[in-house]
Amino acid sequence: MNRTAIIAGAGHLPAAVAGALDAPLVCALDGFAPLGLVPDMVFRVERLVPFFRALEDAGVTRVTFAGAVQRPRLDPAVFDAGTAQLVPRLMAAMAQGDDATLRAVIALFEEAGFTVAGTAVIAPDLVPGAGVLCGTVSPQDEADAARAAAIVAALGAVDVGQGCVVAQGLCLAVEALPGTDAMLAGVSAMPASLRPPGTRGLFYKAPKPGQDLRVDLPTLGPDTVMRAAQAGLGGIAWQAGGVICLDRDAMIAAAVDAGLFLWAR
Amino acid sequence: MNRTAIIAGAGHLPAAVAGALDAPLVCALDGFAPLGLVPDMVFRVERLVPFFRALEDAGVTRVTFAGAVQRPRLDPAVFDAGTAQLVPRLMAAMAQGDDATLRAVIALFEEAGFTVAGTAVIAPDLVPGAGVLCGTVSPQDEADAARAAAIVAALGAVDVGQGCVVAQGLCLAVEALPGTDAMLAGVSAMPASLRPPGTRGLFYKAPKPGQDLRVDLPTLGPDTVMRAAQAGLGGIAWQAGGVICLDRDAMIAAAVDAGLFLWAR
Repeated sequence: MNRTAIIAGAGHLPAAVAGALDAPLVCALDGFAPLGLVPDMVFRVERLVPFFRALEDAGVTRVTFAGAVQRPRLDPAVFDAGTAQLVPRLMAAMAQGDDATLRAVIALFEEAGFTVAGTAVIAPDLVPGAGVLCGTVSPQDEADAARAAAIVAALGAVDVGQGCVVAQGLCLAVEALPGTDAMLAGVSAMPASLRPPGTRGLFYKAPKPGQDLRVDLPTLGPDTVMRAAQAGLGGIAWQAGGVICLDRDAMIAAAVDAGLFLWAR
Repeated sequence: MNRTAIIAGAGHLPAAVAGALDAPLVCALDGFAPLGLVPDMVFRVERLVPFFRALEDAGVTRVTFAGAVQRPRLDPAVFDAGTAQLVPRLMAAMAQGDDATLRAVIALFEEAGFTVAGTAVIAPDLVPGAGVLCGTVSPQDEADAARAAAIVAALGAVDVGQGCVVAQGLCLAVEALPGTDAMLAGVSAMPASLRPPGTRGLFYKAPKPGQDLRVDLPTLGPDTVMRAAQAGLGGIAWQAGGVICLDRDAMIAAAVDAGLFLWAR
């Protein structure tokens, strides 16, 4: 038996990934229930080793991570002996930040004998390759996207945000801890006098440089399109193959409706 | 005769610089009147060469730049023949951005025979050297300031903002085109659930890496202290010798009142 387990966090992504798989085993991290999907199994980080065994028993050979999680609080009373031995390693990774933690978690699954596959492999329709999905990309948009990509790469190198807004070469906003929605709300609230006249500018999104593209890809959805339109932007561009588009059809419909371009760059 | 001319833009800085000089010649860029200071002379970029001659006639040997200017619109009808010859050079610099433009302007003043001195030389009281001006800097604040300095350096390298807010290693906000006030307002509006518990975090400010410290230093003032306090921050840190503190006594009084530290790092 060769079965794929979805290691699910919160949000709509686990259900979208499940839709691309034949009989996946849906495993939810305790406290981060996926939307529109009933988990087959709920697991805790403190009992990772028994969880690995349960996956094997269910015939799982491949896992994929989908959905948002925050750092769970660990309850020392719940650890089994096997997982307790992993604690120093997990703690050392956590001290180095989210990227290191994810790398350590992937390594643990691989050492337990599972293949770890990214969303682009499991559900290629969710991760668009290069191309303009709708609308028109002007030379100014191309220049703005190049500038935005350089800014996001510089931010990623210091582990800040994965997005920014650029209009005519000027950086109107940068994503930090509060995230994309807060950034686009800030742009919506920006007085017109501060914005360069002419083109409307774009929102650009990309994974951090050097991040493992099998986990934690940034995600765009129809609501992102709405917020970008509310912010007066001309479109959304992102790193092709590095960003998940949740409900692509609805995204395109919303973008066409609002006159925005969508560009996997 | 050895006189210093203040090449003044808008705001309170030109008056503060004037207070540190004996009989300065105050020259205002047309359209950017300084506050609390009557200009001796108003000049236009289109007539830079005649302006240089007027400075010489007034016995000026040294100039200092003070106050905010935006790129002025140039009126082709106003150019004199000498300044018109400088236009290709100015245009080439402008196309490369604000930093290149400022470097070109400094070079023009130097080629015309003037010494260009920074605020730190002219009015050292306005540009604090290293030290804690008030309050207490904790080890967590030191770590946050180091992280913030790395973030601002990365941003500066792609010509975005000169400030950010960090709390417990997490970047809460990054300064972009709308500036410091907008960023601190965004932090004020941030839901408490998004902020890390424990220390309050700090606002950090620094010039761009590699910028000429004789012009366009970032500026802090008493209103910055108020906004940082409203944002719930624990203090303000900045690059020692690279940031202007307008009305330092009022800044310290406001910070003491609000329980904030001020640290030239």
